Amino acid sequence: MYRTKTCGELRLADAGQTVTLAGWVQGVHDLGALTFVDLRDRYGITQLAFNEDTAAELKEKAQRLGREYVVQATGVVAERYSKNKNLPTGEIEVNVTELNILNESLTPPFTIEDNSDGGDDIRMKYRYLDLRRNAVRKNLELRHKFAFEVRRYLDQQGFLEIETPILVNSTPEGARDFVVPSRMNPGQFYALPQSPQTLKQLSMVAGMDRYFQICKCFRDEDLRADRQPEFTQIDCEMSFVEQEDVLQMFEGMSRHLFKTILNIDIPTLPRMTWADAMKYYGSDKPDTRFGMEFVELKNQQPDNASRELVESIFPEGFGVFDSAAYIGAICCEGQAVLTRKQIDQLTDFVKRPQIGAKGLVYARVQEDGSVKSSVDKFYTQETLQVLKDKMQAKAGDLILILSGDDAMKTRKQLCELRLEMGSRMGLRDKSKFSCLWIIDFPMYEWSDEEQRLMAMHHPFTSPKPEDVPLLDTDPARVRANAYDMVINGVEVGGGSIRIHDAKLQQKIFEILGFTPEQAQLKFGFLMNAFKYGAPPHGGLAYGLDRFVSLFAGLDSIRDCIAFPKNNSGRDVMLDAPGYIDQSQLDELCLKVDLPEA
Amino acid sequence: MYRTKTCGELRLADAGQTVTLAGWVQGVHDLGALTFVDLRDRYGITQLAFNEDTAAELKEKAQRLGREYVVQATGVVAERYSKNKNLPTGEIEVNVTELNILNESLTPPFTIEDNSDGGDDIRMKYRYLDLRRNAVRKNLELRHKFAFEVRRYLDQQGFLEIETPILVNSTPEGARDFVVPSRMNPGQFYALPQSPQTLKQLSMVAGMDRYFQICKCFRDEDLRADRQPEFTQIDCEMSFVEQEDVLQMFEGMSRHLFKTILNIDIPTLPRMTWADAMKYYGSDKPDTRFGMEFVELKNQQPDNASRELVESIFPEGFGVFDSAAYIGAICCEGQAVLTRKQIDQLTDFVKRPQIGAKGLVYARVQEDGSVKSSVDKFYTQETLQVLKDKMQAKAGDLILILSGDDAMKTRKQLCELRLEMGSRMGLRDKSKFSCLWIIDFPMYEWSDEEQRLMAMHHPFTSPKPEDVPLLDTDPARVRANAYDMVINGVEVGGGSIRIHDAKLQQKIFEILGFTPEQAQLKFGFLMNAFKYGAPPHGGLAYGLDRFVSLFAGLDSIRDCIAFPKNNSGRDVMLDAPGYIDQSQLDELCLKVDLPEA
Repeated sequence: MYRTKTCGELRLADAGQTVTLAGWVQGVHDLGALTFVDLRDRYGITQLAFNEDTAAELKEKAQRLGREYVVQATGVVAERYSKNKNLPTGEIEVNVTELNILNESLTPPFTIEDNSDGGDDIRMKYRYLDLRRNAVRKNLELRHKFAFEVRRYLDQQGFLEIETPILVNSTPEGARDFVVPSRMNPGQFYALPQSPQTLKQLSMVAGMDRYFQICKCFRDEDLRADRQPEFTQIDCEMSFVEQEDVLQMFEGMSRHLFKTILNIDIPTLPRMTWADAMKYYGSDKPDTRFGMEFVELKNQQPDNASRELVESIFPEGFGVFDSAAYIGAICCEGQAVLTRKQIDQLTDFVKRPQIGAKGLVYARVQEDGSVKSSVDKFYTQETLQVLKDKMQAKAGDLILILSGDDAMKTRKQLCELRLEMGSRMGLRDKSKFSCLWIIDFPMYEWSDEEQRLMAMHHPFTSPKPEDVPLLDTDPARVRANAYDMVINGVEVGGGSIRIHDAKLQQKIFEILGFTPEQAQLKFGFLMNAFKYGAPPHGGLAYGLDRFVSLFAGLDSIRDCIAFPKNNSGRDVMLDAPGYIDQSQLDELCLKVDLPEA
Repeated sequence: MYRTKTCGELRLADAGQTVTLAGWVQGVHDLGALTFVDLRDRYGITQLAFNEDTAAELKEKAQRLGREYVVQATGVVAERYSKNKNLPTGEIEVNVTELNILNESLTPPFTIEDNSDGGDDIRMKYRYLDLRRNAVRKNLELRHKFAFEVRRYLDQQGFLEIETPILVNSTPEGARDFVVPSRMNPGQFYALPQSPQTLKQLSMVAGMDRYFQICKCFRDEDLRADRQPEFTQIDCEMSFVEQEDVLQMFEGMSRHLFKTILNIDIPTLPRMTWADAMKYYGSDKPDTRFGMEFVELKNQQPDNASRELVESIFPEGFGVFDSAAYIGAICCEGQAVLTRKQIDQLTDFVKRPQIGAKGLVYARVQEDGSVKSSVDKFYTQETLQVLKDKMQAKAGDLILILSGDDAMKTRKQLCELRLEMGSRMGLRDKSKFSCLWIIDFPMYEWSDEEQRLMAMHHPFTSPKPEDVPLLDTDPARVRANAYDMVINGVEVGGGSIRIHDAKLQQKIFEILGFTPEQAQLKFGFLMNAFKYGAPPHGGLAYGLDRFVSLFAGLDSIRDCIAFPKNNSGRDVMLDAPGYIDQSQLDELCLKVDLPEA
């Protein structure tokens, strides 16, 4: 070893010891007769001291050290004259008696500090320098610990980690596959797995009973801000279970993770039906760190979220409300103080094309209990008092109202508004966690594009037994044995109880519009396997990147990935993808056929 | 849950309990008034009993159960009349009071038994049934445990598991890459990693200090018996270490694995130089479960294995020996009893084209101490006694001698003969383990094909400091800071201390025949990273599949892989690779261009 101690471990009790440290030069501080060097490694920073009186030559050498030089220093631990309370090693320094430069460094293109001066692009290009930053490194440490604790919990519960192949065939997730040409099978391609869904179900058919895997998955999609072409999944499956068993098992895992990693005891996870989530939060992943639930002021469009008709509380008069199928509102506590300008900003916010509301109606509850609204000219104070009561609003509160002719779309707009208000009101603290299960998802959702019902989860999801008769009469109303775990408005995981009955599976395929031939072609090997004694089974998968990001309080999953790709799917550090030799293409029997510029 | 107990846990102490089990029907045995059903799950087998007197209808239902039906049975645990000592549950049975068929099964295409009647092909096609076999399942359980214990050890030692990307650029390992066309970057390709070598070195530059990863690696090579296009590596790297530190750390890991998984205390690993391994075993991965080391009877061709000239112990007379550059022999204890026919078989063995010896000379030491050999007519008994002494052979031993004009080739032939004799003599017991380090590998090996020196390990391997001067004078003699861990003749892992000095790296590239421009083109991003303060570092990688196979006593790595590929790189269960739609090819700007049939 080039060191006897790391840069993070020396304390006052070590004073007098001779130690050897190795690490990177964080900075050199010249104080006349003394020169101090901050030496950094993964474990911390230790101050090296060079004294002109005792070691003039060494001091001179230290003065010439550049940032990020790699050095080895031997010396005696001593109590510091001026202690640094912010550093665990801040009570000591090392009086250096020997200094070796192990490697020099060019001046790094950005500062290796928590708040670096480097922009995103340059930090990604020099990711190996970016990772030296404390703020980035600790995310990877957290990720390591997180994955380790996942494994520890699941191992204790009798799960086997089974590696499934990366070179597979197309998977039924429906996104675009990455493909890999096979040289040994010319003209044929492997696909990279979008998830090990079929293989984990086959593991259950194989009697593995409890399977998990922390594995890479791949989707060739146009990348949004928080997507990566390759991402990591905690993939799990259990046999002989019902939904309750899966929920209990993985609630236990979350409890274990929160406790061992963040030392937080989370309460029993509430369960919310998909219908309630949509009705009260306009989202299947509600952020429940705060309330501000929707109140339906009018609903003339019963759907899967709510079958209940609600008469409008507003008498005829305001055309927008009169013609709306749905009017919903949230009550923002204490927000009556918002200025007209601030409310205009909110109006602009909901009118942005990504959200698409037509406008925003507000009502302030004044100190005297009277209500002042943007629709005063259409409604009496009496009506506004009904609104106030309905919203359970009190003096100082602000009521925000959206309406529209599509209930579901309006709910989604109101969801965005609620989240925005939550943020503005400081109700979305990243150090607070609110976890819940969303259950009873619909089996299907209507696709305008495809003009047919599509599987909301995937085609192997089982319907709730009590809803099976509806498959024949009103399939759109069938609920699934499917569930998501949601934390702070983020869907961290989800899954379902699978169909293990071949006849039921056949029926589901029919409803999805597959002919038996198409179903056989697409899912044949799985359906064949199911003929040989498939056990009842179910499971779920977590997005590791998202889950870790949440624990780390990050805005983007990218920050907890060691070597992420940018929005064009490029690794700018490796400069991948790149061009390959014609000879390699020839071996693969492929020709690149670029469209003309 | 569909069960209250598994099929592996009931004991006599549970008698009287009402339990519910679920699993697969292993077999139905009809004994007149009684029917027994063996119910199997991952955890074991439990006997279900159906009595005509108490439950005639149930008994009839049980009789109609087919093999591999999935059933749920509730009943009372009772002591068995005739106990089965071979089963942990063999003292009890369950008198069934309720039986539900959860799923039926077609008759499986082979028996689900330890010794199945299914051939390799059919078992691979129905791998989900093959995995139900005890013999296969326990390999996956072992693999899970193995990987878990690797992680536990490395976590305790402060290693961080850092996931590196799968979609990367070409790696410098030199085998053929699998490539992935990028739709977002038309005409460009990702490569799948042959190993995370460069990324783990970048992690060290990034200050991660101790990295590991259990990860998939990919090589598009023509598959030999025991190769898979995707395989799993335990990849490790440490900073600020010398070779000794790496050896200690990973010897510790092996000790941990042997102890926790097999409950075996392994002794301190001996270290053998590559030269000695070649000289005494003819292999850089000697099987040291048994001795039978080579004795050089003549060596006129000094090389990296041995620089020592050995005068022939044989006087002139036998042309084959007279003209040989090298004569080597092994002494097989007690094997003088081999018949002429058996020795002829050995002669045929070494003359097989894969081995390529010209012939085999033998000498038996008789009971009276005299030596009887196949070259008696050329040599006096006196010479043969010299041979006997040199070989330290005693009465009843058999001496086997190979000669040739290429010392290294002859050693490799003698190695095969030694292993064959070890097998025949029962010295290669799979439940015994002999571990060692091979150290001091040569930096380079001569490639007849390329007519130049090639890196034996990879181009980032550092030379031994004391051999650096030889780089200028006799590079072929330079030894590397490289090491392999060998167990029972299998190279389970290997690695090296890397070069962290840019100037030394430049020199190594020169010797390998790279111009600075070529080196920059091929390894530029790594060399650039090294300019920003690369610490001294080194590491190694284990082949997980091989390591686990060894622990499991398997002949092929395939048996410890859940879903392996065949020798054409096909997954016959998934039927991958396969053809993809033209539309998908179009999106990738690719054309398949098959040679005409």
